Amino acid sequence: MRELKIVQRIAELASHQKPNSLLIRGIGDDCAIVRPQEDADLVFTTDFIIEDRHFRLDKSDAHDIGHKALARSLSDLAAMGSEPVFCLVSLALPAGLTEAWLTKFYEGLLALADHFKIALGGGDLSKSEKVVVDVMCCGSVPKGRAILRSGAKHGDRICITGKLGGAAASIWRKPVTPRVWEGIALRDIVSAGMDISDGLSIDLRRLCEASGVAASLHSNQIPIAEGATLKQALDGGEDYELLVTLPPGRSLPLYLTEIGVVTSGAPGLVLLDGDPLPATGFDHFN
Amino acid sequence: MRELKIVQRIAELASHQKPNSLLIRGIGDDCAIVRPQEDADLVFTTDFIIEDRHFRLDKSDAHDIGHKALARSLSDLAAMGSEPVFCLVSLALPAGLTEAWLTKFYEGLLALADHFKIALGGGDLSKSEKVVVDVMCCGSVPKGRAILRSGAKHGDRICITGKLGGAAASIWRKPVTPRVWEGIALRDIVSAGMDISDGLSIDLRRLCEASGVAASLHSNQIPIAEGATLKQALDGGEDYELLVTLPPGRSLPLYLTEIGVVTSGAPGLVLLDGDPLPATGFDHFN
Repeated sequence: MRELKIVQRIAELASHQKPNSLLIRGIGDDCAIVRPQEDADLVFTTDFIIEDRHFRLDKSDAHDIGHKALARSLSDLAAMGSEPVFCLVSLALPAGLTEAWLTKFYEGLLALADHFKIALGGGDLSKSEKVVVDVMCCGSVPKGRAILRSGAKHGDRICITGKLGGAAASIWRKPVTPRVWEGIALRDIVSAGMDISDGLSIDLRRLCEASGVAASLHSNQIPIAEGATLKQALDGGEDYELLVTLPPGRSLPLYLTEIGVVTSGAPGLVLLDGDPLPATGFDHFN
Repeated sequence: MRELKIVQRIAELASHQKPNSLLIRGIGDDCAIVRPQEDADLVFTTDFIIEDRHFRLDKSDAHDIGHKALARSLSDLAAMGSEPVFCLVSLALPAGLTEAWLTKFYEGLLALADHFKIALGGGDLSKSEKVVVDVMCCGSVPKGRAILRSGAKHGDRICITGKLGGAAASIWRKPVTPRVWEGIALRDIVSAGMDISDGLSIDLRRLCEASGVAASLHSNQIPIAEGATLKQALDGGEDYELLVTLPPGRSLPLYLTEIGVVTSGAPGLVLLDGDPLPATGFDHFN
């Protein structure tokens, strides 16, 4: 396919999307244009997925790859408690990839985009030897109300959505649905939060470091996905659940499980059943 | 290098940057946070550069690659007439690349960023076989005042900044400085505009299509870079000059050269000295 044909095909696939009120110009000019709401902050994140690193062409369905490419960035918007606004999709493709693959990729990405009402605002295309996708997502949050990693305080309860270890336990990684609605609901009640993308052990350490606090977990409180081990729940990445801290006195929403408590120990120290928990989550350069 | 060390090194290299008043939180949380100005629109663009496609590691200096990665996106901000705000840099690297290469890459990128006061707001890191860089840039422009491709009218003069064909003529592509200041000045006086990234012949056709107009150029008016041919000036990409249309009666700024006129011919038709000019600029999938 030639570039113009690819761009036309993508625009066609996205043409059913309802306009997002903030995105006043999408695909077709040098830049997308956004008119922010008054009294709102905008949040931005970007995430790669790369062939043979995050997926294999012969093992993953193009639809799932498109879903996953957007899900990773949407999970960061969820972590900040923001409403999704728009995304830019940068896509580098081998020359031999078919139009059918491209169509299924965008169908997967757009199905998730439609679910969360996030508009495809443009992107970039290039030829490459391997498939590389970089998705930038923008969300909107009332001024000063984004959930940060840095607000956890001694005595707060540590909670997560969902169960952990499912992605690490399964050879075939199922598409996850980012916790966007939960993130929006949580921004009014939590003191700190982030998403668990690299593993609970390393991500909780990051939250504790940013907040200058320590944490104490109880292994029998951690909700483990069916078929996963405790180790997979602690160190496995790609679950994309939310990790938050809830100040004392706040009632626990139904979709949260309490797994421990914030303490005043050495900043970044995480104890499991009283012993230091090594942060052995995913390092992208290992 | 491990991921944490790379992130620390990047944060160190960017630590001298003066804060941008709109970027209220940069590297270090799940998302960057921007607090937009009242009465402003924000514009967004993203551009890849990929090893062996846009540069070769053995022929290009890491400093120049960093400069070029940011320059491409900044040129899109210039095309909209916007003030640069912040960028996100997604970087996929082979494991064997040295810290010295990474340092020079970011020094090149940040030197250009500092020149235009654009803040590094975060990004993503991954391992890959080849170097892949995707830079997302955000600019700010007074509400409703972004330069679009779609405003050109019959009788407007077609003008460009600088000279064309220089990038196509030189084997060693020199770092270009995007026309950010010119773009900001031009937003008050032009009817349409874009940057010339793929070549005048194809980019002028795109502008004419978006505006529903035709164009007539005169070959003896086109400013050709030293050492370049007329064909290179017409079809060569990567010059990153601005292409604008100026309504009658507006005086020509010193940094613009008039190269033709907007006509009411078939939308997208470009004539050179009276003959149709084929749009043979750069196709990313050729």
